[in-house]
Amino acid sequence: MTATIKLGELAEFLGATLRGSPEKDITGLATLQEAGPAQLSFLANPQYRKYLVDSQAAAVLLKAADAEGFTGDALVVPDPYLAYAKASHLFDPKPKAAVGIHPSAVIADDAQVDPAASIGAFVVIESGARIGAGVTLGAHCFIGARCEIGAGGWLAPRVTLYHDVRIGERVVIQSGAVIGGEGFGFANSKGIWNKIAQVGGVLIGDDVEIGVNTAVDRGALADTVIGNGVKLDNQIQIAHNVQIGDHTAMAACVGISGSTKIGKHCMLAGGVGLVGHIDICDNVFITGMTMVTHSITEPGAYSSGTAMQPAAEWRKSAARLRQLDDMARRLKQLEKRVGDVTPGGNASSEG
Amino acid sequence: MTATIKLGELAEFLGATLRGSPEKDITGLATLQEAGPAQLSFLANPQYRKYLVDSQAAAVLLKAADAEGFTGDALVVPDPYLAYAKASHLFDPKPKAAVGIHPSAVIADDAQVDPAASIGAFVVIESGARIGAGVTLGAHCFIGARCEIGAGGWLAPRVTLYHDVRIGERVVIQSGAVIGGEGFGFANSKGIWNKIAQVGGVLIGDDVEIGVNTAVDRGALADTVIGNGVKLDNQIQIAHNVQIGDHTAMAACVGISGSTKIGKHCMLAGGVGLVGHIDICDNVFITGMTMVTHSITEPGAYSSGTAMQPAAEWRKSAARLRQLDDMARRLKQLEKRVGDVTPGGNASSEG
Amino acid sequence: MTATIKLGELAEFLGATLRGSPEKDITGLATLQEAGPAQLSFLANPQYRKYLVDSQAAAVLLKAADAEGFTGDALVVPDPYLAYAKASHLFDPKPKAAVGIHPSAVIADDAQVDPAASIGAFVVIESGARIGAGVTLGAHCFIGARCEIGAGGWLAPRVTLYHDVRIGERVVIQSGAVIGGEGFGFANSKGIWNKIAQVGGVLIGDDVEIGVNTAVDRGALADTVIGNGVKLDNQIQIAHNVQIGDHTAMAACVGISGSTKIGKHCMLAGGVGLVGHIDICDNVFITGMTMVTHSITEPGAYSSGTAMQPAAEWRKSAARLRQLDDMARRLKQLEKRVGDVTPGGNASSEG
Repeated sequence: MTATIKLGELAEFLGATLRGSPEKDITGLATLQEAGPAQLSFLANPQYRKYLVDSQAAAVLLKAADAEGFTGDALVVPDPYLAYAKASHLFDPKPKAAVGIHPSAVIADDAQVDPAASIGAFVVIESGARIGAGVTLGAHCFIGARCEIGAGGWLAPRVTLYHDVRIGERVVIQSGAVIGGEGFGFANSKGIWNKIAQVGGVLIGDDVEIGVNTAVDRGALADTVIGNGVKLDNQIQIAHNVQIGDHTAMAACVGISGSTKIGKHCMLAGGVGLVGHIDICDNVFITGMTMVTHSITEPGAYSSGTAMQPAAEWRKSAARLRQLDDMARRLKQLEKRVGDVTPGGNASSEG
Repeated sequence: MTATIKLGELAEFLGATLRGSPEKDITGLATLQEAGPAQLSFLANPQYRKYLVDSQAAAVLLKAADAEGFTGDALVVPDPYLAYAKASHLFDPKPKAAVGIHPSAVIADDAQVDPAASIGAFVVIESGARIGAGVTLGAHCFIGARCEIGAGGWLAPRVTLYHDVRIGERVVIQSGAVIGGEGFGFANSKGIWNKIAQVGGVLIGDDVEIGVNTAVDRGALADTVIGNGVKLDNQIQIAHNVQIGDHTAMAACVGISGSTKIGKHCMLAGGVGLVGHIDICDNVFITGMTMVTHSITEPGAYSSGTAMQPAAEWRKSAARLRQLDDMARRLKQLEKRVGDVTPGGNASSEG
Repeated sequence: MTATIKLGELAEFLGATLRGSPEKDITGLATLQEAGPAQLSFLANPQYRKYLVDSQAAAVLLKAADAEGFTGDALVVPDPYLAYAKASHLFDPKPKAAVGIHPSAVIADDAQVDPAASIGAFVVIESGARIGAGVTLGAHCFIGARCEIGAGGWLAPRVTLYHDVRIGERVVIQSGAVIGGEGFGFANSKGIWNKIAQVGGVLIGDDVEIGVNTAVDRGALADTVIGNGVKLDNQIQIAHNVQIGDHTAMAACVGISGSTKIGKHCMLAGGVGLVGHIDICDNVFITGMTMVTHSITEPGAYSSGTAMQPAAEWRKSAARLRQLDDMARRLKQLEKRVGDVTPGGNASSEG
């Protein structure tokens, strides 16, 4: 479950400047406060600098500036958080699946499974699917007809791909995610909803990560598209024909409605909702639980919602909000009347 | 994967007036802008009329009014979007499951599976369940004891029905949906939550669709009830004893709390939340991410929330909101004082 | 499917004072309005007292005060709702799984499964896992390496535990829940997200319930921790390194961001969102769809959001909200000007 790596090897792996004993054994990772004498820690956020002096860590990843005055063993790097990210994989207790096909898997005759793939128990792979080298399919995965999974992909147990989902290389998908579900397309006729077949597929780039129980619907006509390097957290809903630009990240519980297009390098915080058929430009940051009802054409941060209050105060604010239009009109009226009777009147600038 | 249908056959199938060559081969569907010379397109939204003249589509579904002046091949229909919905199923690449029971399926001796049903790999069907004619159960489905699934149902891979879930005809359920889970029922005694067994079931009408990873809990005492023609998108939460009227549609990420009753022909946009034990009348439309805290007795559209702003401006609005009750009182006081000193004073009408 | 129990036995089981015939057969539970002559009902909420007189129930659980003047058979108890909770399990139609291991299950050689556990079809149990006495694992469950499930646990069909998830006794997990998924940890370097291995696990106390399709991520370094008696409803997202105190309950669709710590005996209503790295003290109640952006240090109720309005009115309020900062400044200016010209002026108290 735990690896042991010498501090000198770690320094070499990370391209770090080692200050301390290269022979020291490192067996894991922990925060500055919790690290024991065989664990590596890191100092990325200045807020935690106060914990450095008392840390029991075997060694600490830090910047040159923070290394000054620190007497413990150190790995000096330009970006300690990035170095921690790289080091973390050396100590990951995640079991590595054996290469080969579990005897219980049900695989169509004309599916292509690379001999260097790992196919878990009770996996189903349907006609015409292609599974690349080094791909891991956890137990209970379902891979629909004509799906493609590029080299190095890792699907946790119980991931479902409907037919015609094409996935790039090194893509990680967590349990319960469903890719290619039939989007919500219905034509209303006299009050009755008539289903529209969703004939498009899903196209997912390289180095994408998709979280637990996240849903990415297939396109109604053309494909739903997820760019390279996109990171989707858990419980996200991506509707049909959404397009997400490269390296955009979304926190949990985000919902994107149909045909909306999101740019590159955007960040959506948790619980954000976007209506359909809008465009979000590159480099947009949307704060938590914001409702986005129109396109965004300028990079920057956007928000909606109200700040939390004690419930009794909130009830007053919420009630007053309904009177806000009336208040605005009364304020304007009052300004006019006061302007009529006071010196320098009627100079206010209503927005 | 793709069907080929002659334009004349399509016209007949749709009851459309054909303008053009009945022998033309149609192999698929696409938007006006993306359609190639063998694809059918449609013009439903007047906003897209501008793309009609340059469309490469083999033929276009459109209204008589839009057909005037259009020189390409056309299928003239009263409702092009509805006609597109009907035509879409002809070109659906979704694999059709073979009739019969996969040898890996585990089926209770006393379960009844119609010979014209299709049961996928690793399906489990428990005691007393009944699966109708033409039903498809995708791989990894679990059908609990005494469940009933009416004729023509289609369950995607990995749908879970707990015991005593009764489903009408032609019902579609997407992957990851869970029907009949144990609702959130606990009696608090001295700070400790005591579980209440959820002894009701779930009753689902005909022609219902349930989306990816949507949860419909079983009733605490009586059944949770989903009416005919109801369409539920992905990631929805329906709590115990909710009742949903016929032909109501809900977009993704909606949450309905326990014992709430929703009328017929309602539409709930994405992310809407309803508290428990309220009644929503027929023909109500609720806009995205609205929090519904009380019953609605009049048809119409309802909203809550605030509009998105750049985050810096939003922070000011959010801070001011907490002062709103104070502002309202000051405004009223000011009106009184101004009324005392100006002609025609104190005539404002506070709501 | 239904049990039959004599009213006298029920009284004894519940420690209730029986008023009526101990030989009466009780076959189920129902509300006062819906109960038939062989069903037990209860009166907990005074709002329903009006239904007592006409109830057809065989007997009613009620308080001594409500028993006065009621002529039907009664089981008099101090807390009728709690008594109903206890009685409900006697009439639960949920099938009881047979003890033993289904022949289709795939269990690692070095996993330990108690002989008094029940392991369903297509279950996978990986290396080093330990399943306690009386545990039920529904069909399609996946139990990762080194997981531990304490005695008396009940996992519905299709629950997935990643490796290193340790669960206490009598824990209930509903279908589709995923425990131990890899949290959303990435280090951004020049616009590219680099994955951080999530090397921690999940630690779940005794008597916890986890709802349908709920996700509890594993810790990034240390464990994510769910205390004793915690109840999580459906579709909840618990991010890495969250800590939840004993006996806290969360309704559906709540999202908790990483490293946030929640106290004991808290209640979060549906759709609440919490940002990361904050602390919520004990005994906090947060109303539905509230966005919690900072720590809470005082017990009590907290809210955010706006009240629902007809959409046309709401549009006006939402537009005015963007002018609120301007309005506040104008109001202050006006107060100053009015103060200059009226007696007793400039006494307003801006917050």
